[in-house]
Amino acid sequence: MAVIVSLEGDRGPEQRPTLDRLGELVSSDLQRVNELIVRRMDSQVSLIPELAGHIVAAGGKRLRPMLTLVAAKLCGYRGDRHIALATCVEFIHTATLLHDDVVDESELRRGLKTANALWGNKASVLVGDFLFARAFQIMVEDGSLPVLSILSNASAVISEGEVQQLITANDTATSEQAYLEVIQAKTAALFAAACRIGAVLGERPEVEEEALDSYGLNLGIAFQLVDDALDYSAAQKTLGKSIGDDFREGKITLPIVLAYRRGSETERQFWRRAMEDLEQEDGDLERAISLMDTHGALADTVARARHYGAVARDALGIFSDSVEKRALLDVIDFAIDRAY
Amino acid sequence: MAVIVSLEGDRGPEQRPTLDRLGELVSSDLQRVNELIVRRMDSQVSLIPELAGHIVAAGGKRLRPMLTLVAAKLCGYRGDRHIALATCVEFIHTATLLHDDVVDESELRRGLKTANALWGNKASVLVGDFLFARAFQIMVEDGSLPVLSILSNASAVISEGEVQQLITANDTATSEQAYLEVIQAKTAALFAAACRIGAVLGERPEVEEEALDSYGLNLGIAFQLVDDALDYSAAQKTLGKSIGDDFREGKITLPIVLAYRRGSETERQFWRRAMEDLEQEDGDLERAISLMDTHGALADTVARARHYGAVARDALGIFSDSVEKRALLDVIDFAIDRAY
Repeated sequence: MAVIVSLEGDRGPEQRPTLDRLGELVSSDLQRVNELIVRRMDSQVSLIPELAGHIVAAGGKRLRPMLTLVAAKLCGYRGDRHIALATCVEFIHTATLLHDDVVDESELRRGLKTANALWGNKASVLVGDFLFARAFQIMVEDGSLPVLSILSNASAVISEGEVQQLITANDTATSEQAYLEVIQAKTAALFAAACRIGAVLGERPEVEEEALDSYGLNLGIAFQLVDDALDYSAAQKTLGKSIGDDFREGKITLPIVLAYRRGSETERQFWRRAMEDLEQEDGDLERAISLMDTHGALADTVARARHYGAVARDALGIFSDSVEKRALLDVIDFAIDRAY
Repeated sequence: MAVIVSLEGDRGPEQRPTLDRLGELVSSDLQRVNELIVRRMDSQVSLIPELAGHIVAAGGKRLRPMLTLVAAKLCGYRGDRHIALATCVEFIHTATLLHDDVVDESELRRGLKTANALWGNKASVLVGDFLFARAFQIMVEDGSLPVLSILSNASAVISEGEVQQLITANDTATSEQAYLEVIQAKTAALFAAACRIGAVLGERPEVEEEALDSYGLNLGIAFQLVDDALDYSAAQKTLGKSIGDDFREGKITLPIVLAYRRGSETERQFWRRAMEDLEQEDGDLERAISLMDTHGALADTVARARHYGAVARDALGIFSDSVEKRALLDVIDFAIDRAY
C-alpha cells in the first residue's frame, strides 16, 4: 500500500507563488544568455555541443543565471556584462550536474535520460571539465578579478561539498549540522555567488555585496531543503519528477535525518537496512514516507526551509523597494511553496 | 614467445641525457612548490588531501612546474610568483590525471594503485574538480589576467583533446593527423602554457612568449610520442612501467596508426580484432610488437618525436645562451632519449 503524504496547504493552486515577475523582468536578457550558452558551448569536437546541448536544452529553470541578471538590475547595472557572467554561472552549474550524475549513477534528470546514461560516464566527466574551463575563459574575457574570485571560490566550495556528501552517503548517523554544511557547499554557494556578482557589476558597496550573498546562500539552502522534501512528496509528481530517487540511492537528506533521530530502535534498524545496506524491499519507500509522516519529518524539513527563507528575506532589507527586489522575494516564496 | 623490441641506440647509459641540470637549477624553488602543493591541496574535507596526496606524492617528475620555474628564470624573473603559478600548473595536471584514470579505468599509475582504484571513480572525479578550482583560486590570488587566460585556454583545450581521444578510441582508421591533434591538445597545450607563463612573469615581449609557447608545445608533442612508443618498448621496464597498457585498452597511438597503415589486410584484421573488438588472446601483444618492428612503427614514432624536438630546439633560438636555456634544451634530449 502506497502512503503518499501530501504537503498541500490550504492555498489553492491559483494563489501559488510563481517566478512570473522574475521571468518578465529578465526575459530578453535570459534569451541573450540562452543564445550565448549555445554559442559558447560550441567546439570543433562535436560531441561537446551534442552532450552539453542535451543537458542545457533539458532546461531546468535557469534559476541561477536569472538571479545574476536580476541582482545586477537591482544594483543599477545597465551594461552587457551580466549576460556573459550569467552564462558562466549556468556553465558551472551544468558542469556540476554532469559530474553529479556520474557520481550518483543517475539514469534520469528532469524526466530525460542523463548524459552519462546516453554517452557514458567518460564523456560526461570530460564535457563537464570543458564547461568548467569555458566558464573561466569567459570570466577572463570579462576581465574582473573580483568576479573570478567569487566563482573560483564557489567552485572549490562546491567540490568540497560534493566530496563531503560522498563521505556521508548512506550514513544514517549524519547529523543535521553535517547535512546543512553539505547543502550549503554543494548548492547554496553557487546561489550566493550568482547573486553577489550583481553587486560587483553595479559597483555597489561591500555591504550590498554581502547582503546579496547572504540572500543567495539562505535561498539556496531553502531551495535544497525543499528539493529534498519533495523527493518524498506527492507534489513532486506535478513537477514531472519521480518520488523516492534519494531513497533508492540511500542518500541521507534532512527528512531521513529527522525521521531516524526521532524514530524507535526498530525504525532505526529499518533505516539502516534500507539506507546503509541498501537492502530495499517492495513497500519500503511507502514505509519510509509513513515514518516521515509520523514524525513530522517532511513538514519540519519545510519548516527549516521557511527559516532560511526568512533570513534571505531580511538580507534584502537594506535595498529599497523595487520591482527587482520584489522579484527576488518571489523566488523565496516560490522555492518554499513548491512543497505544497 | 615475447618479441621485445629494444630501441637501444649506440650510446651507453653513462652518456644518457638527464634532467640533472634542470633539477639543480630549480631545486630550491621546486621544494617550495612541493610545500605549496601540500599546503594548498588541504581541505577540511579530509578525503581531499588524502586522495590528492596519494597522486601528488606518487610523484612523477614534476616536469611541467619545473618548466614554469626555469622559463621564469630564463626570462629574468626574480620574484616569488612563479612558485604559486608552477603549483597551479601541477594542480591542473593532477586534476586531468585523476579524470584520465577514471576515463581509462586505469588500475595503476607510476607503479601505484590509481586513486580511482583505491577510492572509487566518484571521489576521483570530485577531487579532480577541487584541484582544478583550487588552481584558479591561486591564479586569482596572483592576480594576472594574462596568466588566467593562458591556463583557462589550456584547460579548455585539454578537455577538448580528451573528448576527441574518447571519440577516436579503438578506431584503427584514426589518421596520424587526428592522433597528432589529440596529443597536441591533451598533452602539449599544458607544456606550452607552463612555459609561456615564464615569459609573462618576466614581462618579456610577445615574441618571447610565443617562442616559449612553441618550445613547450613541440616538446610536449615529442614527449607524448615517445611515451606512446615506450608503451611497447623494453626501455619502458627501466622506467618502472609495464608494457602494453595502451594495447590492452585498445588505445590508438601512433605506433598502431603506422603499423596499421603499413600492414597487409591480414594484419589489419588482427589490429581490428585486438583494438576495435578488444578480443585479445595470449601472444597478441607480442604479435603487435613484432608487427611494429617489421614496419618500423616504433622507430618512426621516435623519428617523428625527434622532428618536434628539433622544432622545440629552434624555438629557443632567439634566447641568448644561459644555463636556463641549456636546461630547457636538456629536456628535449631527455624526452626523446628515454626511448633508448
